[in-house]
Amino acid sequence: MKALVVCSGGLDSVTLAYRVAKEGSLTSLLSFDYGQRHNKEVEFAKQCAAQLNVPHIVIDLRQVGAQLTGSALTDDIDIPDGHYAEDSMKVTVVPNRNAIMMTIAFGLATSQKADMVAMAVHGGDHFIYPDCRPEFIEAFTTMQNHALDGLNDSGNIKLYTPYLHQDKTEIARDTAKYNVPVKDTWSCYKGLDTHCGRCGTCVERREAFHLAGLEDPTEYADSDYWQTVVTEKV
Amino acid sequence: MKALVVCSGGLDSVTLAYRVAKEGSLTSLLSFDYGQRHNKEVEFAKQCAAQLNVPHIVIDLRQVGAQLTGSALTDDIDIPDGHYAEDSMKVTVVPNRNAIMMTIAFGLATSQKADMVAMAVHGGDHFIYPDCRPEFIEAFTTMQNHALDGLNDSGNIKLYTPYLHQDKTEIARDTAKYNVPVKDTWSCYKGLDTHCGRCGTCVERREAFHLAGLEDPTEYADSDYWQTVVTEKV
Repeated sequence: MKALVVCSGGLDSVTLAYRVAKEGSLTSLLSFDYGQRHNKEVEFAKQCAAQLNVPHIVIDLRQVGAQLTGSALTDDIDIPDGHYAEDSMKVTVVPNRNAIMMTIAFGLATSQKADMVAMAVHGGDHFIYPDCRPEFIEAFTTMQNHALDGLNDSGNIKLYTPYLHQDKTEIARDTAKYNVPVKDTWSCYKGLDTHCGRCGTCVERREAFHLAGLEDPTEYADSDYWQTVVTEKV
Repeated sequence: MKALVVCSGGLDSVTLAYRVAKEGSLTSLLSFDYGQRHNKEVEFAKQCAAQLNVPHIVIDLRQVGAQLTGSALTDDIDIPDGHYAEDSMKVTVVPNRNAIMMTIAFGLATSQKADMVAMAVHGGDHFIYPDCRPEFIEAFTTMQNHALDGLNDSGNIKLYTPYLHQDKTEIARDTAKYNVPVKDTWSCYKGLDTHCGRCGTCVERREAFHLAGLEDPTEYADSDYWQTVVTEKV
């Protein structure tokens, strides 16, 4: 297989890149700058590509992101603190973000004669993000098979989502299994100098390492907050 | 309804814009510059938006187009002369182009609180372009309903493709019905000063007006070629 991995530079997609590399099919990483306030994550994806010795393609979608208004990731709206299981996290949805990134990835995969696109969606994302759910992934695959019918010599391009029915704890375990340099990944939505420790993705990251029984080497501005949120809300 | 029309500036999508305007739901036009050699078409879309008095959004996808290699529309490959019913036309496929444009359109429609995206795919495109076929349109709709589940107050965004089971002759007829200024549309893939009259889209345009029994006001560099191709190949 020849796999293109959609890699934000976050914990999930960097771990996926290491996993796909170990499985022997990694050919390139693809990142997007859609004007997310934490677009420093793209530098971590670049570092990952260098570590794994594959090309890194960055697509500038800031014009698109500027039109996808209403999200705290791209607009001047405060990033909420708390746990992903809270309704308040819905303000972090960028409408159709995954579908847009994935159609571009499938187009590039066709041109590169790759036969797989890998995406690190996981079970912890299902509650908030409709474009991370199994029914979306299945429908997307069907749509792509029609859209590219006859264009790929090797048949349909596979959509590889090994964490779709697992949660971030499983990804934390995989960081150990695949020797992922966790310090060289960026999750925090706020995009400041260190991980805030309070936003949904920081809380989930810290919680995942705890549940996996692994040390989290990440430096958090507030390293205790996650425990109060997890105790109260989960 | 509030409809966003994906409009290239070509005959089909400009006619669709006029039709949707007449039907009372047109709210904006959306165009893409993906580095197509005939990107002068975008100026015709701009003119259409001005005529219909709606906002025109142009998204720069040239970075994406540069990666979607292998097409005569974006690479340094000659545009073939002839009829769309010929296999040689397959070199004009830009892989996943419609899926990419349509996912962006659905994202924007969500942010704009529109409830419809309109796209001028038609039956004449089915042979060459897999992302214009009914099975793609159906699968795309299902995918979008999942991707945006719960995000739109008014429910699912409708994908409106009134020409899906018709051909360009029907579109030519609609130019008369909706008073479309045909001269203010651009089809030719070569993107020179006048329509070439020899590429697949010029041949199809000229043929459509002939079959509709209407005068084609378009100036073609070679205005007779289409007849030889149609006689020989269809």
